[in-house]
Amino acid sequence: MKNNHKIKKVVAVVGATGAVGVEILKILERRRFPMAKLILLASERSEGKTITFKKKKIKVRRLTEDSFKGVDIALFSAGSSVSERYAPIAVKSGAVVVDNTSAFRMDPSVPLVVPEINPEDLKWHRGIIANPNCSTIQMVLVLKPIHERFKIKRVIVSTYQSVSGAGQSAINALLNESMLKLSGTKVKKHVMHHPIAFNVIPQIDLFLSDGYTKEELKMMNETKKILHDDSFKLTATCVRVPVLRGHSEAVNIETEKQFTISEIKKELSKMKNLVIEDSPEERLYPMPIHAEGRFDTFVGRIRKDSTVPHGLNCWIVSDNLLKGAAFNAVQIAELL
Amino acid sequence: MKNNHKIKKVVAVVGATGAVGVEILKILERRRFPMAKLILLASERSEGKTITFKKKKIKVRRLTEDSFKGVDIALFSAGSSVSERYAPIAVKSGAVVVDNTSAFRMDPSVPLVVPEINPEDLKWHRGIIANPNCSTIQMVLVLKPIHERFKIKRVIVSTYQSVSGAGQSAINALLNESMLKLSGTKVKKHVMHHPIAFNVIPQIDLFLSDGYTKEELKMMNETKKILHDDSFKLTATCVRVPVLRGHSEAVNIETEKQFTISEIKKELSKMKNLVIEDSPEERLYPMPIHAEGRFDTFVGRIRKDSTVPHGLNCWIVSDNLLKGAAFNAVQIAELL
Repeated sequence: MKNNHKIKKVVAVVGATGAVGVEILKILERRRFPMAKLILLASERSEGKTITFKKKKIKVRRLTEDSFKGVDIALFSAGSSVSERYAPIAVKSGAVVVDNTSAFRMDPSVPLVVPEINPEDLKWHRGIIANPNCSTIQMVLVLKPIHERFKIKRVIVSTYQSVSGAGQSAINALLNESMLKLSGTKVKKHVMHHPIAFNVIPQIDLFLSDGYTKEELKMMNETKKILHDDSFKLTATCVRVPVLRGHSEAVNIETEKQFTISEIKKELSKMKNLVIEDSPEERLYPMPIHAEGRFDTFVGRIRKDSTVPHGLNCWIVSDNLLKGAAFNAVQIAELL
Repeated sequence: MKNNHKIKKVVAVVGATGAVGVEILKILERRRFPMAKLILLASERSEGKTITFKKKKIKVRRLTEDSFKGVDIALFSAGSSVSERYAPIAVKSGAVVVDNTSAFRMDPSVPLVVPEINPEDLKWHRGIIANPNCSTIQMVLVLKPIHERFKIKRVIVSTYQSVSGAGQSAINALLNESMLKLSGTKVKKHVMHHPIAFNVIPQIDLFLSDGYTKEELKMMNETKKILHDDSFKLTATCVRVPVLRGHSEAVNIETEKQFTISEIKKELSKMKNLVIEDSPEERLYPMPIHAEGRFDTFVGRIRKDSTVPHGLNCWIVSDNLLKGAAFNAVQIAELL
């Protein structure tokens, strides 16, 4: 790639005013990402807004085909259709794209990367690197070390996903609907099609003909791609819960090889950015309110499932806007 | 039992002012349960309160050892310790006890009954009949017809349980904490040990030494007892979600025999008080806000899990205070 010899990069953030974009900017600032210039791009609606970055005000520009001139790294998180259209344009302009949408994740010419797990896949990129789905990232951090040591036969996962996974409008919807419900006012229109305040919705993304949602399919397919194991068996039920930030997952794992719980914990403790939080006697286990704002992923409730010879249950929580999106994207950008 | 020849019964409701007690009274009224007299019992705290039943005001009495004189049927839902102490006294006084707590559920001399599934177990009661745990009742309504026809090998369930399962104080806690959180006020003390507003808590009831909670153990053991199958394999993760009413469950089932989805639906459609709600294209699936106030249990998201030869995923929702507690108890009382 052009310009790769420069230490300081020109970075563009596409979707800079969205829920993930805002977090990307915070992380770039906090981690002192070496930048020659930061370009903020968004839709027409946000054009002209200013965002403060390192105490300087930066104007948000409207995304156009000419936005990527001189850009080294473009971080996309403005929805799949925006990525589909503009990521190839950015690549043509000489930028490397880290894409946070599902647009290119299953494209065989695009690496799908969790830096703790398959950083080697960055080597063969052709301009676009895909950031996996939030619910996949936090889960593979746990699956990978177990798979490597004990060979996983099958995974059954049920998710408890926060509204922030659906963007800022969904966050506002949960807050508004909660307020209205508490004041006894009927809510008429629902951003998430159904009421989300004080409710759970067993649908994330659209349905496919086999009865699974796209979100559930993403968890199955992306896990295979990240782990480089096409035969990996995983089935998922993805559910939206009235939580603002942080996805939780109840994960059941069956392995081929025998293990003890302390062996599992030992393997998990070696994984970077994964924290074991598992002291039931102190009521300590991962919860979204504790994971909020943290880069780490948390695992707890680790216990044997004796309905199969080598079964395991656990509970995984992470901030879906950070490790599930912005943090993972910046980690990839740092590796570039 | 004494007085079994009378048509109209003297009924006592123990815990009449609690979340389940209130629902029991509503159902007795709505279903015109044949009663000669209704006695409302509660702790000292509620003594003297009045409750309107069929337009008549009834005073709540304090529960004492003499409360059950002349009582034919006593419906208990005031916590395990109250049942442990007073249910045997009620039986001695000649009453039949329908107990909604976990006090006697696993006692081999006490039948554990879901009227749609094992009404025959009522025959061998010795004065006490146990009502199963809310999360068990709604699940076995789905498991039973599948087990009978296709023989279930293994079940993995993750629950999304509403706060009303923890009583009126937990309902108030969710409402108060939500209000405070929306107004930006910090909540200091938590009825559920952790904040529940905009959070999920992967603990219901206390922990056992194997890392499971009592709630998870209840689902495993009660299912075996209700289905009369000690070898039944089930593993559970029970989670509290910020929902007021209605428990949801993501259930993965593996059967021994082959099935098609339409065969499964056919078997499920035969089960009384179970409604299939499964039209993904119309975004129709069970949700707690739809189940609230309904006697039925709802099942949807019925789809093949192809990670095993005969696998199935589904999603079950029911009003935990109704089919999960009060309605099931009144159904038992009606059968008596």
